[in-house]
Amino acid sequence: MKTLRLSAILVFVALCAGLLTGCGSAPRAYLPRYKSGNEMVRPQNYQEWIYLTSGLHMGGESSSEGTFTNIYVTPAAYYRFLASGRWPENTVFIEEKRNSSSRTNKADHWQTDLVRFNAQVKDSSRYPEKWAFFSFGYSQETAKPNARTRCFECHFERGAVETTFVQLFPTLRAAGKKFGTYLPDLDGPYAAQY
Amino acid sequence: MKTLRLSAILVFVALCAGLLTGCGSAPRAYLPRYKSGNEMVRPQNYQEWIYLTSGLHMGGESSSEGTFTNIYVTPAAYYRFLASGRWPENTVFIEEKRNSSSRTNKADHWQTDLVRFNAQVKDSSRYPEKWAFFSFGYSQETAKPNARTRCFECHFERGAVETTFVQLFPTLRAAGKKFGTYLPDLDGPYAAQY
Repeated sequence: MKTLRLSAILVFVALCAGLLTGCGSAPRAYLPRYKSGNEMVRPQNYQEWIYLTSGLHMGGESSSEGTFTNIYVTPAAYYRFLASGRWPENTVFIEEKRNSSSRTNKADHWQTDLVRFNAQVKDSSRYPEKWAFFSFGYSQETAKPNARTRCFECHFERGAVETTFVQLFPTLRAAGKKFGTYLPDLDGPYAAQY
Repeated sequence: MKTLRLSAILVFVALCAGLLTGCGSAPRAYLPRYKSGNEMVRPQNYQEWIYLTSGLHMGGESSSEGTFTNIYVTPAAYYRFLASGRWPENTVFIEEKRNSSSRTNKADHWQTDLVRFNAQVKDSSRYPEKWAFFSFGYSQETAKPNARTRCFECHFERGAVETTFVQLFPTLRAAGKKFGTYLPDLDGPYAAQY
């Protein structure tokens, strides 16, 4: 009986240790959710995933101020890419657009409100092209996969690793090259072929 | 003996469960490390913490291209701030500077190589001002706390919440205001008083 009680205490301690070491306060796993077939449900709290990079004025906006683009990826996919140079099933990217602000006659720019966000998902069992793109606008709760006329062309032709712009992700370029998944034609000195 | 063996198995299972549920592949907890008193050891893998925002040309750089600034914070501090509007002990911020690149005669800018990074740490037991600032350059393994002539003035006078520029962190402004820790004088329409 004493040993059983000891056992229970040990299990409790081990669970606490598991929760404390490295788990922080929030879950890190994320799987894309769907309703009505392939309609994707808006991902929650993607700002807590792994951040990959930002750009300013990347979309050829006509406004002089432009918008910031922030790129996030699901943590599990990030670690898998570092270890293999490949994206696993259920990889989700978020492209977040935020307004930019600046001071008159100054060169500095900083981020303000969310404008809209898009998702890119890998799921070979759902999509013949393996990847799909979703545009959630500012506040849509769900989004259907985009038609092939939207996002596909650039991503499939110019993404350095399997439809993704790894040439623009400073923390992942080395892994793509190490594992030979990175298309060398797309490695200009300034990643200018994005 | 059998019960002990059972106990060992249960502990193992519990540890695995702890590691699997929500932990992903990487540790999320981070405590600042020091050597020789208050000399801070370079934080590893801070790119996997919580990203808060980016700016371009924020430091008044003289080059026309400027540099990007990316801000990260330790995950535990992020969740605590969302729940309380306050920064706990051992909060660590990283300010990462990356080169910017662009195409000739185009307005787009994207991030390339790391230039340098700085840390800001809260530790009331170590520092009379509660917070300290560290400059790691590009590759220093350790850094001593900066003198009060560097970083302090701006952060202490213009940080919207306790020396930190929450006016520039879109995902945290609301929490600062909700819990009344946000200095209203520093909430200009364009956060221009940063």
